[in-house]
Amino acid sequence: MRLLLLNPNTTASVTERMAAVARTVAAAGTEVVPLTAPRGVPYISTRAEAQVGGAVALEMLAENLAGADAVIVAAFGDPGLGALRELAPVPVVGLAEAGMLTACMLSRRFAIVSFARALGPWYRECVEYHGLAPRLAAIRLVDRPFGSIETVQDEFEALIAETAEQAATEDGADAVVLAGAPLAGLAERIADRVPVPLVDCVAAATRQAETLALLGVRKARLGNFRRPDPKPSSGLAPALADLVGGAA
Amino acid sequence: MRLLLLNPNTTASVTERMAAVARTVAAAGTEVVPLTAPRGVPYISTRAEAQVGGAVALEMLAENLAGADAVIVAAFGDPGLGALRELAPVPVVGLAEAGMLTACMLSRRFAIVSFARALGPWYRECVEYHGLAPRLAAIRLVDRPFGSIETVQDEFEALIAETAEQAATEDGADAVVLAGAPLAGLAERIADRVPVPLVDCVAAATRQAETLALLGVRKARLGNFRRPDPKPSSGLAPALADLVGGAA
Amino acid sequence: MRLLLLNPNTTASVTERMAAVARTVAAAGTEVVPLTAPRGVPYISTRAEAQVGGAVALEMLAENLAGADAVIVAAFGDPGLGALRELAPVPVVGLAEAGMLTACMLSRRFAIVSFARALGPWYRECVEYHGLAPRLAAIRLVDRPFGSIETVQDEFEALIAETAEQAATEDGADAVVLAGAPLAGLAERIADRVPVPLVDCVAAATRQAETLALLGVRKARLGNFRRPDPKPSSGLAPALADLVGGAA
Amino acid sequence: MRLLLLNPNTTASVTERMAAVARTVAAAGTEVVPLTAPRGVPYISTRAEAQVGGAVALEMLAENLAGADAVIVAAFGDPGLGALRELAPVPVVGLAEAGMLTACMLSRRFAIVSFARALGPWYRECVEYHGLAPRLAAIRLVDRPFGSIETVQDEFEALIAETAEQAATEDGADAVVLAGAPLAGLAERIADRVPVPLVDCVAAATRQAETLALLGVRKARLGNFRRPDPKPSSGLAPALADLVGGAA
Amino acid sequence: MRLLLLNPNTTASVTERMAAVARTVAAAGTEVVPLTAPRGVPYISTRAEAQVGGAVALEMLAENLAGADAVIVAAFGDPGLGALRELAPVPVVGLAEAGMLTACMLSRRFAIVSFARALGPWYRECVEYHGLAPRLAAIRLVDRPFGSIETVQDEFEALIAETAEQAATEDGADAVVLAGAPLAGLAERIADRVPVPLVDCVAAATRQAETLALLGVRKARLGNFRRPDPKPSSGLAPALADLVGGAA
Amino acid sequence: MRLLLLNPNTTASVTERMAAVARTVAAAGTEVVPLTAPRGVPYISTRAEAQVGGAVALEMLAENLAGADAVIVAAFGDPGLGALRELAPVPVVGLAEAGMLTACMLSRRFAIVSFARALGPWYRECVEYHGLAPRLAAIRLVDRPFGSIETVQDEFEALIAETAEQAATEDGADAVVLAGAPLAGLAERIADRVPVPLVDCVAAATRQAETLALLGVRKARLGNFRRPDPKPSSGLAPALADLVGGAA
Repeated sequence: MRLLLLNPNTTASVTERMAAVARTVAAAGTEVVPLTAPRGVPYISTRAEAQVGGAVALEMLAENLAGADAVIVAAFGDPGLGALRELAPVPVVGLAEAGMLTACMLSRRFAIVSFARALGPWYRECVEYHGLAPRLAAIRLVDRPFGSIETVQDEFEALIAETAEQAATEDGADAVVLAGAPLAGLAERIADRVPVPLVDCVAAATRQAETLALLGVRKARLGNFRRPDPKPSSGLAPALADLVGGAA
Repeated sequence: MRLLLLNPNTTASVTERMAAVARTVAAAGTEVVPLTAPRGVPYISTRAEAQVGGAVALEMLAENLAGADAVIVAAFGDPGLGALRELAPVPVVGLAEAGMLTACMLSRRFAIVSFARALGPWYRECVEYHGLAPRLAAIRLVDRPFGSIETVQDEFEALIAETAEQAATEDGADAVVLAGAPLAGLAERIADRVPVPLVDCVAAATRQAETLALLGVRKARLGNFRRPDPKPSSGLAPALADLVGGAA
Repeated sequence: MRLLLLNPNTTASVTERMAAVARTVAAAGTEVVPLTAPRGVPYISTRAEAQVGGAVALEMLAENLAGADAVIVAAFGDPGLGALRELAPVPVVGLAEAGMLTACMLSRRFAIVSFARALGPWYRECVEYHGLAPRLAAIRLVDRPFGSIETVQDEFEALIAETAEQAATEDGADAVVLAGAPLAGLAERIADRVPVPLVDCVAAATRQAETLALLGVRKARLGNFRRPDPKPSSGLAPALADLVGGAA
Repeated sequence: MRLLLLNPNTTASVTERMAAVARTVAAAGTEVVPLTAPRGVPYISTRAEAQVGGAVALEMLAENLAGADAVIVAAFGDPGLGALRELAPVPVVGLAEAGMLTACMLSRRFAIVSFARALGPWYRECVEYHGLAPRLAAIRLVDRPFGSIETVQDEFEALIAETAEQAATEDGADAVVLAGAPLAGLAERIADRVPVPLVDCVAAATRQAETLALLGVRKARLGNFRRPDPKPSSGLAPALADLVGGAA
Repeated sequence: MRLLLLNPNTTASVTERMAAVARTVAAAGTEVVPLTAPRGVPYISTRAEAQVGGAVALEMLAENLAGADAVIVAAFGDPGLGALRELAPVPVVGLAEAGMLTACMLSRRFAIVSFARALGPWYRECVEYHGLAPRLAAIRLVDRPFGSIETVQDEFEALIAETAEQAATEDGADAVVLAGAPLAGLAERIADRVPVPLVDCVAAATRQAETLALLGVRKARLGNFRRPDPKPSSGLAPALADLVGGAA
Repeated sequence: MRLLLLNPNTTASVTERMAAVARTVAAAGTEVVPLTAPRGVPYISTRAEAQVGGAVALEMLAENLAGADAVIVAAFGDPGLGALRELAPVPVVGLAEAGMLTACMLSRRFAIVSFARALGPWYRECVEYHGLAPRLAAIRLVDRPFGSIETVQDEFEALIAETAEQAATEDGADAVVLAGAPLAGLAERIADRVPVPLVDCVAAATRQAETLALLGVRKARLGNFRRPDPKPSSGLAPALADLVGGAA
């Protein structure tokens, strides 16, 4: 099985880190294909950046679709998820979606914990998009400058563990999703310091994408995620123009 | 006052039609500035197209911001609305948002009526984004091929009137929003054939954008729509890169 | 255009203050007609007072309907709004409704700030009536005695600014509606002290009523706000009895 | 115990019919005191009529409070309920409220069945006011002219039974509330013809009011239904002015 | 009338205390029949205990159904309520359900106050089951060891009063339900110390069960609570096997 | 890894069928341990049966916990899920929960399709328990007698395919969950006849349970699913009494 790990951020080292985590939970026969956005921002944290990143994700999908069995849109906040799900002939899963749905099986209400205050508005809209606001205990964000997106999980390890604990003790969260590509792999390291289950969103998304492919679900021919009718376009990246234009 | 009428579709004649409607309700001193997307699709009807269109809208905003007092994102479905509202120093209003909020003052529950079945999933997500699902009676869409997006309102005049009437009689809608840029100006022509109030979303958006500017509301310095911190980027359109990068 | 500014409170000086604010945003050709309740309480702050005030508003409507193009029920809490909207042949807008819907275009969640603790239960029911509870961040009320309803906005200027700021910083409000007829005009004075946009509900309602009239919406002949069938009555004010009885 | 059966409609014979039903379920020691509105409409069916009827109900309360242990506002739709509950030192229960809460103990979702289409918008707002929309299966209304409000339950007996049955078979209602003062006493007569439990709202309200009095609940000194602070007024009915003004 | 007071806990003295309270509000002709679970736990406080207790309650119902007019499942949390309501030919009411619905007539939002932290998750699920989460201000639980379930209401009298007061002053509860069989009868003793109405859930349930019986409601023949079709079983208590198997 | 497939129904052949499906998607190293209820009913379809079945499931858990890495409660409707999740030191997943959450990644709204009308009320409560009612398009149930629970999926193959198709075309479901242990394995056979993705709830639950175990989530020490404090009991099955009593 071939899983596209499609990172709409431009930081290749974060993509690699995610791929490494993905491979620890993927089945033996699963190939994880890491892809990094060719343009955009180093890490998406606002709706404007997600708007652009989601559009770039569509181009990445169009260019790498051949042979894929499932796709992970590998930024918490799930930029372009609905759009990708429409166009892709195979299942698509978002980091936020997979992390939250997995947390639902461990909790009545879960929290989302991440490393930057700027992420708040976008993450909240993402929770609402998935209809999971009633299951959300809180979004807790570390609000402190960090050195680099590539090392933020090391810099903030203690702070994130503490914040996750506060989500449990003060917000009543029964489980905590560690959110954001740059935190991939951190959950396992701090799990013993937090009194409720932690979910690593990259590991969760890898398993969920693999599950959908393994279940053999067919592409919808009707409803919300059927393939839209072909549409002419101008000025789009060629592969995306072809896909929007009806190419198989 | 200078209102940007920012059409994320590529069909200039539809932009012109909207501008004409906008000018019928704008105040004497209001200048309506029509802008058409330089790339994308002739008319957005899916989430994939809206993802791209919203990203293009951000570029259009960045390039035309100087001197603007308010911005209308002139496609029902409001592509990029949250992103635009974050980045713009002046108020931004969506066609769907303005149409629906205006309809709220005429109804307990309103319907959305438009000209193509393909619009359904995207419009529904838009209603949910605005938290207005409890006020929605139905989305009713004509499901029939049309000749051209430029003439669809003439081709479908009778059908749209009939569909709006069904929304009132069968779905219990107390008001109907005629949705979609290509229907601008139709409401007035068919109003007498429909037993509940009709809202023209372009006229509504023009007035709402003008209202926000007239009220003199300040740009948020806190919360959901504060200006995000500057972010480096690569490969974006220059003006957008500047705006995301923190340019005034 | 002729806008009735129908104040269901008995304090004429507050009506005058509202009319002055309304005139600053109304179009050149719009005549604002201030009307003060002939009986009731100086300012409505409870549901019992609103029940009576709403009934008086119906009498005021019946007596002043001739020639009106739109009606503002000029007390936050919108006493009698549904009843007025049923009976009036022209659009009716409430101060709370207009203020909140306008705030929706500036926020994901807005706060309501006002000058007396007693207003809380009534305002909350009003928010729920409009289905806007999911968009409400908080209702924050100054809880301190004031000298006079006519001067409360001057007495409390600093307190209201501070309370609005707390709504932004502590409740996560992205915008604040200054609520209550006695606060008309205050928003502009304190806007620079508050980190999120402020909405003056009288200015908002004036524009919204004018917008509905300008859009030329027809009176519903079906649904929630169609004119009810004529009903005999006894003991009502003559003009209201006529209106309930089916007079044009 | 002394229960005020406060009918905000002006039809005395309907009040008498309700009193007769109330007496069949009231305890031996309970005195049911029927009161008919001195002005208003023969039967309230719209929000405008309820606005006025609720204000009249406040006057009736103020004039008849002495010695009462609990109050029933005896019109489905509960005109003035919140206002009455604020001002009254004893429990107040509405016909709709009591009928619906009683139905909750017999169903997951209940229907409301009544005798006139005009009642729809008002009843729906009433259900929403009580936060019971998620428990509502449907409102079904006979839509046919009737001879007289006093005899409508006889005229429509078969039709109401049929409508209640449709609510069970077509809308999935597990219980049906027969709504409206004029239908008092009908439930028992048609119960065997309907496949789900029927609730007589007058019998339910009588028991619920008696229950609150019997439980000895104290008047709130805090929160939503504490007695509001005294307020001066002008032009109100003397007893109501006294009550609003702070009279015990 | 014969009311089964079916306690799914194994502590007979608590059953007796509840029966005593029930008799203070039951009508003269009402016989209260106390029944204590023959197996299970002394007092249910978790979902696992409620799962077992609810199954035992079904056995108790099956064995004691003859001659009953209504049934009270006498543990807050209502273990087995839906199951009991399906199988019983007569009305069934839960302590939580009756307490909360009664509180709805005294409040916009009520609180639940009880004596042990362990009860929180179960009680919250119970509130959600009844669709009453929007009416819930808070669940407040004393978190301190107590000597015995039989005397906890005496041990904690002052603490419970204080906790109820905090629910009013800090959580905005307009009424408080004292939750749990072991607190039966406490409300009356502490009512004067709490600024909002208190509801004794045993007294409320007694009256509500009696009300449903008195209203003469018929067993549903359709919908959620119709009697299920007979089903063979193995290993169940004989009376329950008979009831599940279709015995009258 | 060792997965308990805990069937609270008494039909061993259905357990075997589920185990066979589970093994097709489980990883090479995963051992699926099928367990059939020693008492109860052949297939649970009502809340009463689920109440008993859930209690039996607790006994089965207590007796088979040693060495397990995760648990599947293998009846759609998830009898005893919350109770099991409290007591088990390892993750527990329900068939309904897993099926629905998996469907969420394929749809905006999903449908549940099954083989007997009697299942409706129980399934609906299950959807609500998981907070997924807003994501539910419909529950569609074949309403026709079948020969045997062991062969119902063969008997009804065409009918189920047709019903699933109706859920897509008439209810707007974007995905369909085939519900109920007896339908395990059917999805793959009929997938090509249904225009939207189908989810096999046994396959989904197997993967979800395996995922939670693989993610290495720790047992909650706080919140909703922490292990309850030990409690004495009487008359329970010995292993369950030990588990409730605090045994490791």
